[in-house]
Amino acid sequence: MPLYEFVTTAGTLTDEQRQTLAAEITRIHCGETGAPFEFVHVVFPELPKGLAYTAGRPGSPMLIRGQIRAGRSIEVRHSIMNQIYELVRETTNADPMSIIIAVVDFEPSHVMEGGFILPSTNAADEEAWIAAVSKAHGSAADVNNQV
Amino acid sequence: MPLYEFVTTAGTLTDEQRQTLAAEITRIHCGETGAPFEFVHVVFPELPKGLAYTAGRPGSPMLIRGQIRAGRSIEVRHSIMNQIYELVRETTNADPMSIIIAVVDFEPSHVMEGGFILPSTNAADEEAWIAAVSKAHGSAADVNNQV
Amino acid sequence: MPLYEFVTTAGTLTDEQRQTLAAEITRIHCGETGAPFEFVHVVFPELPKGLAYTAGRPGSPMLIRGQIRAGRSIEVRHSIMNQIYELVRETTNADPMSIIIAVVDFEPSHVMEGGFILPSTNAADEEAWIAAVSKAHGSAADVNNQV
Repeated sequence: MPLYEFVTTAGTLTDEQRQTLAAEITRIHCGETGAPFEFVHVVFPELPKGLAYTAGRPGSPMLIRGQIRAGRSIEVRHSIMNQIYELVRETTNADPMSIIIAVVDFEPSHVMEGGFILPSTNAADEEAWIAAVSKAHGSAADVNNQV
Repeated sequence: MPLYEFVTTAGTLTDEQRQTLAAEITRIHCGETGAPFEFVHVVFPELPKGLAYTAGRPGSPMLIRGQIRAGRSIEVRHSIMNQIYELVRETTNADPMSIIIAVVDFEPSHVMEGGFILPSTNAADEEAWIAAVSKAHGSAADVNNQV
Repeated sequence: MPLYEFVTTAGTLTDEQRQTLAAEITRIHCGETGAPFEFVHVVFPELPKGLAYTAGRPGSPMLIRGQIRAGRSIEVRHSIMNQIYELVRETTNADPMSIIIAVVDFEPSHVMEGGFILPSTNAADEEAWIAAVSKAHGSAADVNNQV
C-alpha cells in the first residue's frame, strides 16, 4: 500500500507517459503522506479498445483509483487528488470530464505486506512495523531513509 | 461516477451484447438515481480464458461491480441490482448462480471528476457542482438536461 | 462472494501455479468461514509486462485482493491472510515485500448472487438464503454439503 490503479483503454498512454505518471504519482503520494517510495505501487490495467462506454456509447474514460490506508486527513486526500489531476492534465491530452480520480480507504488491519499486517497511520506504529519487517526481510531499513 | 465494471472471461460476450448491457445499465442507473447519462461509465474487463476459477476449478463467473456515490437508499440500490440481474438474464445465457452483482459505495468526498470533488447526493449540492463544472469546462450544462 | 483477485504481471505464474493457488485459496477461505466451495471465485487478472511500477520504477508486485462479506472476526480475517501469505511463499518465488494481501469487506446487502441479495453471516440467515436459492435454481442444495 498504497496502490494506484490507472485504468485506460489500450493505446491511450505511451510508455513514456506511463513512466512519468508512475514516478510523479509516487512522488505526490510520498510528499503528502511521508510514506517510503518503496511501498507505492502504480499499475496501468488496459481495457481493449471498444470495451469502455460513457453515457451508453463507446468512450475513453481514464479511471485513477488510489487505495490508501485509512487515517489520512481530508486535506491530504484532496491535495493528492488535485495534484494527480494537474499531473494528468499536463501529461496527457485527456478531456477533463473523462478524468475520474478516486482515493479510497483500506483499513490497515485488512492489509498485509511482507507477511505483516499493516500498522495504523501513527508514527510509533509505523516505526515498529518497519522495524519488524526489516528484521524479517532485511529490506525495509534503507527504504525508511527515502521518506 | 458511477462506474460499473462488468468482468467476464474472454469470449463470453459479443460486441452487440456489450452495447446492449452498457446502454441498459446506464438507463437503469439514471432511471433510479436521476443522474445524467454523461457521468455513467460501464467498462468490460476481460480475463483470458482459463484464468477464472469457481470452487477451485476453472469457471466462468460474471462479476458486475458498480461503484456509486454513498447516499442512495437501500430501495434504490436493490432496484438497480434487480434490474441488472434481469437484464443479464435476458441478454446472455449465463448460469444464474454465476452472476454476481455488487453495488458498493464511494464517499463523494473521495472522488473527483473534471477536477472537482464530487457533491453529496442532495439536490442543492449537485446543482452547485454541475454549475461549477459547467463554468470550468463548458460541457456539463447540456448534460443536465439528460436527467 | 467471496471473490479473490490475484493480480500479477503477465508471465509471473504458470497454469499449474494458478491451479494450486485457486484450489488452496478456496480451501483456506472455506476452512476459516464454513462457506460452501461453490461460492468462492478466484480470478487472475494479468497486467502486460512493463505496466506495473513500484517506487516509481518498473516492478512486479503481486496483489491479492479478497472481497468477503462483512461480519467475519478479525481472527478469521488474519488467519486467511496468514495462510494465503504462506501459500504464495510456498507456491511462487516472489520477493516477500512484493506480496500484498488485502481482505476487505462488502456489506452483504450490497451484493446479489443468483438473483438474491446476500444474507448476513449468521447461520439462520445463511440457511434461509441457501433454501431460497436452491428452490429457485435447484443448484445450491448439494453445495451446502460441501461446507
